[in-house]
Amino acid sequence: MRTRFIDACHRKPVDARPIWLMRQAGRYMSEYRKLRETYGILDLIKTPEMAVEVTMQPINAFDLDAAIIFADILPLLEGMGLNLEFIKGTGPLIDNPIRQAADIDKLHEPDPRESVAYTLKAITLARQVLKVPLIGFSGAPFTLACYAIEGGASRNFTRAKSLMYEQPKAWHQLMEKLSTLVGEYLFAQAEAGAQVLQLFDSWVGALSPDDYREYAMPYSAKAIRRAKESGCPVIHFGTNTSGMLPLIKEGGGDVIGVDWRIDISDARQILGPDVVIQGNLDPVQLYAPVSVLKDRVKTILDKMGDDPGYIFNLGHGLLPTTPVDHVAELIHFVHEYSSKAQGH
Amino acid sequence: MRTRFIDACHRKPVDARPIWLMRQAGRYMSEYRKLRETYGILDLIKTPEMAVEVTMQPINAFDLDAAIIFADILPLLEGMGLNLEFIKGTGPLIDNPIRQAADIDKLHEPDPRESVAYTLKAITLARQVLKVPLIGFSGAPFTLACYAIEGGASRNFTRAKSLMYEQPKAWHQLMEKLSTLVGEYLFAQAEAGAQVLQLFDSWVGALSPDDYREYAMPYSAKAIRRAKESGCPVIHFGTNTSGMLPLIKEGGGDVIGVDWRIDISDARQILGPDVVIQGNLDPVQLYAPVSVLKDRVKTILDKMGDDPGYIFNLGHGLLPTTPVDHVAELIHFVHEYSSKAQGH
Repeated sequence: MRTRFIDACHRKPVDARPIWLMRQAGRYMSEYRKLRETYGILDLIKTPEMAVEVTMQPINAFDLDAAIIFADILPLLEGMGLNLEFIKGTGPLIDNPIRQAADIDKLHEPDPRESVAYTLKAITLARQVLKVPLIGFSGAPFTLACYAIEGGASRNFTRAKSLMYEQPKAWHQLMEKLSTLVGEYLFAQAEAGAQVLQLFDSWVGALSPDDYREYAMPYSAKAIRRAKESGCPVIHFGTNTSGMLPLIKEGGGDVIGVDWRIDISDARQILGPDVVIQGNLDPVQLYAPVSVLKDRVKTILDKMGDDPGYIFNLGHGLLPTTPVDHVAELIHFVHEYSSKAQGH
Repeated sequence: MRTRFIDACHRKPVDARPIWLMRQAGRYMSEYRKLRETYGILDLIKTPEMAVEVTMQPINAFDLDAAIIFADILPLLEGMGLNLEFIKGTGPLIDNPIRQAADIDKLHEPDPRESVAYTLKAITLARQVLKVPLIGFSGAPFTLACYAIEGGASRNFTRAKSLMYEQPKAWHQLMEKLSTLVGEYLFAQAEAGAQVLQLFDSWVGALSPDDYREYAMPYSAKAIRRAKESGCPVIHFGTNTSGMLPLIKEGGGDVIGVDWRIDISDARQILGPDVVIQGNLDPVQLYAPVSVLKDRVKTILDKMGDDPGYIFNLGHGLLPTTPVDHVAELIHFVHEYSSKAQGH
């Protein structure tokens, strides 16, 4: 087992910067596109052997320091009674979204060991073949609540925020349910074999700091506390959080995800020395010529110098049209340059 | 003429916080929706008398401290040879977007006094009826370049950024042309009667700070320098800029726009005391019950205390489904609360 990634989560010295990439399994790989000719995304997720196959595709192709189980944040909502579909070209759709307080009362409170057993099984199977650590993950309560209320992706989150402002009691009730479920799901993934857990609060940057503190943070914190009882390091990820990183840190996690909208030196200064940072490369930078890409990667690595608390990643997921050879070059370069820079 | 807004642009003491709202003329008003039953958005913009009528709708309805000419950032691209359409339900579309260096060579370099004469005429006409200051505006070079290359709105700006990374020479050539045109357009609006000028870099938050410094800032700075030759104060607006406010300030402007993704006290600390701040309220906060809305507005006003350099606004444009009575309540409350708080 190569432990570089887990060591970095604990701020232990490493021989080279660990790197993994959000959405490292996906459409940019021909192996994945081929599978998707036959199977829908939910088929792949809900068939543990297939989820393992997809999880392993980037691991077999590249020199990555961690695997992340192939899954999605939304199937967790199905167990609550929400109907999930993935519509080709438009993305996820929930046809019975939450629109009023009564809808929240009616939500089931599933045991994730049953409702998403397929992902837990996939985790156990993946561990048997992996030689790098495996990351389990969940959507954060706020991001899940937005999907559950909006019924899909949204530009301004007017429905979700309106419910939050107009019916705070119902909102808090929903967030209580979600945070219990998310915490339990993360814990169950650790039981099943996940070695690091990541909470994806992809949409949290839609909130003002004051709203985040009041309506979202306590629930991320609760889920993270439960996840931490497993003993696994927890990564707390969000985007568009440059203006509220201290609050994200307060929400918890050993590792804080940052996107590319902040200089990583500024992020370190704001977050202080006692948390690990993950991320910072703009996913679109992978479309740049390799020399330009390397130049930007070098800048990030130089800024982090010998800071032990940094894990290389993108600021958000790999995009479907990313050139696959640039991904290979990126991973190789991060290892090569950082091991030289650290004098190994 | 009520000068509260212009005074605040110069950090002079005011009797109450000035307030205006981005996209204060628009679909949330029934007067506007009624006009749009008959006329397309470009009809309204390109007929000076109608543009004035729309400009005046919110001024007549509410106690606003500034008007902003009814126009759009994209018609400026038409004079360069790009074909602009507004498609119902999807927004603006350019059917001959820039895709390669040769497309940039072919761009015209129009005189905005001719190519967008209708907006300049509207400005002159509006000044004859207005009793509050009039704001002229332009899209910033980066945001305009994104539209010109992507051909419309975009989620990840992969086309625009790819051109930027792959053909930096062509990118810089495009930005030179755009910044000359934008600077000249802003200057011409001042000549026509605009009293304050705002540069809208709505999409600049898609860039990392390093990319902003290299690919965008010099061109915003150039446009702002030209605009400043008019003697008018300049407002430099962007969203998702919490992680690079010092660079936005470096780009220039007397007033810096901030969205809601940062605490306004933090924004003041980062920007220093020598610039005016505008913005900070989440547009979706206007969907909240009035008591909740007032509470958040109070928080912002309290944080700015007697700081003379603050103009109340949203962090981005008013949304089409905003309750119109909440807009009235907001404007009234900002004046009332701030004049009391300042002891007037």
